[in-house]
Amino acid sequence: ARRARANGAAVGSGFDAEPSGRTHPLTDRSANARLHAYDQRVKGAFDRIVPVLKRIAQLRCAPDFVAQAQVIAETELGFRMPEDRLEEAWIAGLDLRTLFAWSVFETYRRMADEFLIEDPLGGRESSSFEAFLQECGFHMLDVTPCADGRLAHAISYVLRLPFGAVRRKSYAGGLFDVEDAVTKWVEIEYRRFREGRPNTADAPTRYLKAVIYHFSSHDPAQQGCAAHGSDDARAARAALERLLAFRQAIENSFCCGASVALLLIGLDTDTDAIRIHVPNAAGEVALDRSVDAARVYDMTCDLAPDAARARVLELVRDAAPDGAPDAGKTQLIARLIENNLSQIDFVRALHGGRYGDHGHAERFMGVGVGFDEIQLRNLTYFAYLDTVEEGAADLDVGCMIFSGLNVSRGLPIPVVIRFDYRGAVPGARERAILHCQRLDRALVERFERQASAGHLHRLLAVRDTDAGTGLEIVGSSLQRDGIGGR
Amino acid sequence: ARRARANGAAVGSGFDAEPSGRTHPLTDRSANARLHAYDQRVKGAFDRIVPVLKRIAQLRCAPDFVAQAQVIAETELGFRMPEDRLEEAWIAGLDLRTLFAWSVFETYRRMADEFLIEDPLGGRESSSFEAFLQECGFHMLDVTPCADGRLAHAISYVLRLPFGAVRRKSYAGGLFDVEDAVTKWVEIEYRRFREGRPNTADAPTRYLKAVIYHFSSHDPAQQGCAAHGSDDARAARAALERLLAFRQAIENSFCCGASVALLLIGLDTDTDAIRIHVPNAAGEVALDRSVDAARVYDMTCDLAPDAARARVLELVRDAAPDGAPDAGKTQLIARLIENNLSQIDFVRALHGGRYGDHGHAERFMGVGVGFDEIQLRNLTYFAYLDTVEEGAADLDVGCMIFSGLNVSRGLPIPVVIRFDYRGAVPGARERAILHCQRLDRALVERFERQASAGHLHRLLAVRDTDAGTGLEIVGSSLQRDGIGGR
Ligand SMILES: [Zn+2]
Ligand SMILES: [Zn+2]
Ligand SMILES: [Zn+2]
Ligand SMILES: [Zn+2]
Repeated sequence: ARRARANGAAVGSGFDAEPSGRTHPLTDRSANARLHAYDQRVKGAFDRIVPVLKRIAQLRCAPDFVAQAQVIAETELGFRMPEDRLEEAWIAGLDLRTLFAWSVFETYRRMADEFLIEDPLGGRESSSFEAFLQECGFHMLDVTPCADGRLAHAISYVLRLPFGAVRRKSYAGGLFDVEDAVTKWVEIEYRRFREGRPNTADAPTRYLKAVIYHFSSHDPAQQGCAAHGSDDARAARAALERLLAFRQAIENSFCCGASVALLLIGLDTDTDAIRIHVPNAAGEVALDRSVDAARVYDMTCDLAPDAARARVLELVRDAAPDGAPDAGKTQLIARLIENNLSQIDFVRALHGGRYGDHGHAERFMGVGVGFDEIQLRNLTYFAYLDTVEEGAADLDVGCMIFSGLNVSRGLPIPVVIRFDYRGAVPGARERAILHCQRLDRALVERFERQASAGHLHRLLAVRDTDAGTGLEIVGSSLQRDGIGGR
Repeated sequence: ARRARANGAAVGSGFDAEPSGRTHPLTDRSANARLHAYDQRVKGAFDRIVPVLKRIAQLRCAPDFVAQAQVIAETELGFRMPEDRLEEAWIAGLDLRTLFAWSVFETYRRMADEFLIEDPLGGRESSSFEAFLQECGFHMLDVTPCADGRLAHAISYVLRLPFGAVRRKSYAGGLFDVEDAVTKWVEIEYRRFREGRPNTADAPTRYLKAVIYHFSSHDPAQQGCAAHGSDDARAARAALERLLAFRQAIENSFCCGASVALLLIGLDTDTDAIRIHVPNAAGEVALDRSVDAARVYDMTCDLAPDAARARVLELVRDAAPDGAPDAGKTQLIARLIENNLSQIDFVRALHGGRYGDHGHAERFMGVGVGFDEIQLRNLTYFAYLDTVEEGAADLDVGCMIFSGLNVSRGLPIPVVIRFDYRGAVPGARERAILHCQRLDRALVERFERQASAGHLHRLLAVRDTDAGTGLEIVGSSLQRDGIGGR
């Protein structure tokens, strides 16, 4: 891992390379450099796998093949290959598909453990943002981005929020499960009553539920949200309807004026610029009224930082349909816009203002519930689900995407099956493991053709969220003795 | 419906027939007569279907076949057959499998609607029991019986509790979902804090979670709990372990002394006599110590009612492992035992002390979530589940049982697919309907052979639990235009 990381750090960052490059006065240049280095390092580790395997393949006739291959693997990837797979190559041939899947899983495991244990983005230092959130009048920020891999960095990069302070649960098209959200709301409110966390129930703060829909300014008709047929207006409307349904569910289910605050955010996946549909004082949102961070950028980039900040606040106030929202909500929205200015510069400086990979370029598929460690754009295609039966549509899309990305190049589809559990609940670990195994069986049943051709490899992992430790690997299709529970 | 009911009422009740028959002094004879009449009427309606179809089949060559068949159906079953199916019989033949499934579904629908709207067992008159429960120190009674059809009458018959005052959620082997139970607990506790329902959070009452495991005194090795291999000791131990896991999950997840009270109950499915594992003052339960209602019956049947009641209380106190439980819990357990004495007499008077159908005799399969209306023994094989993927094992057992009960006689397996929803939650009805359709598809996929042979018929139904109305039928495999959502 040390070696791989050293390699990653050597990749030049645009901010290091051009320290005098022009940015917005409110842009956090050092955060941009840090975030970019992390992104490059992690993706670099995945992207080195194929070239390294090609080099290893060329050596297969060398007399000291195994030793040479291990030196290359350790130097370039930071870990050794499974010795037995290399040793049998002289007679069985070199099974590069297996080595590829093995390397992706190992790279993922290392990256996840580093993230979960060392907190490289500092996302667990959340107390100052939590205090700010409460000052703004909210005791919880619950965000649903679309499950599209191009939104996986929404919290840590696009909005620049510490992920530990935000509940993130992605759904295809932003269409979160209302019943699940109500359950979460009840739990949060109950803790306020019972434990005074994060604040006591008599504090006049609210639960804030946000959805991030997305669109593509560069290729609107092709690269928008697949769940809404790349129709931006439909994506925004559907997200707003779901938010309103959630609020109504709370209001109808609980008496005494129970309610929630709502926030609708749009994301341009080419530039990472957001727009926020600023609600008015009554909490009403208009689909055609928003404050657009790219425009804010242009209107404030020549001001001094304090003046720019004041202007952002003004622009937010002006964007509400009629009458600005309360001061706290205005403050929060202004902060999100300001944070996003850094990300706009991030994409401008490092990707020429627009991502080159405006389409899919995910490195693996993530299936199940969990995945806190995924905070990078286009690293993972998510399918948040409990069962293949419920998530079949998302899985079919994922398999189609990876058929293009991987199978067409002869590479298998690497799938991480993952369930988080609460270690405080007896038996939860065992149930999480069984859950992984059941899902794996159902996945193999649904994608039998790919699986029996060796084109579908799975890693099974669970994690105790109470312990705050790394992953526990509980099985893999690469095991020779088969995955447990069959 | 009027006619069918009149038929049902004509069946003699053992209590009516022998009003001088000896019963326990605490037995509620009028309740027994009422409960028996209801059971006979409902099961009678199902059990008339095959004889009526046989009569109709014999008439198929009669010139006025359709008219004659409808008269018989209406007189005997209380409803008419689908006219088109009868009319085409001259050329297509009489499709008796379809008529059978159609009749079962129609009988179920009528029975469910009557139950849900007219409350024939008075189970919604729950305020006096709720008050008693709170006097005993509990604000909630949450009972998990095994999902076995022979426990479906546990609340209304065996324990004689108003079903409206009890949360019932059945699971195979009594092995309830701990995470689901914690979620429910949080919701109940939250309502106490927020709405003071059923009492305020500062009242020193607890949430009481009970599991009912079962065994067969008549044929212990064959007719015990299938989920535990008919091993009584294992069934009891597993249920207790699950209860303890639930309590520990609550204690570990919430601070400030959050906890729950537990109750382990065993049921002899041949006699309906219960045993309760009386906990001691510290809440500890011993698997080998219980108060046994059949023994209590014998020890108190010669006493006057007041003396018998006092003796029951004493016997409960003596059954705790060391040191009796607190007065409230003792009181509640004594009430459950007393209630069960009536049921013991019910089985003695009406079934010779032991049910004739000590094995499976279910009339249909119920799959999904809901089924409040099922309060009768051996009427329904339950598979409480969200997806076929999770509930596959239970469904396989169900299909096997009905292969013996129905398919072997040439009859199809009638399956009711059902999801309850909360009408207060926007979109919940549409999601419940989609849920039914998705489950139906998965069911047909798993049992393709039976389905394509016409041996698996499904009725799709949803219900708004907020509205308190009857069922809404949303599809059926008998529809000629196919089930929606395909
Ligand atoms: Zn999308
Ligand atoms: Zn970059
Ligand atoms: Zn059982
Ligand atoms: Zn009877």
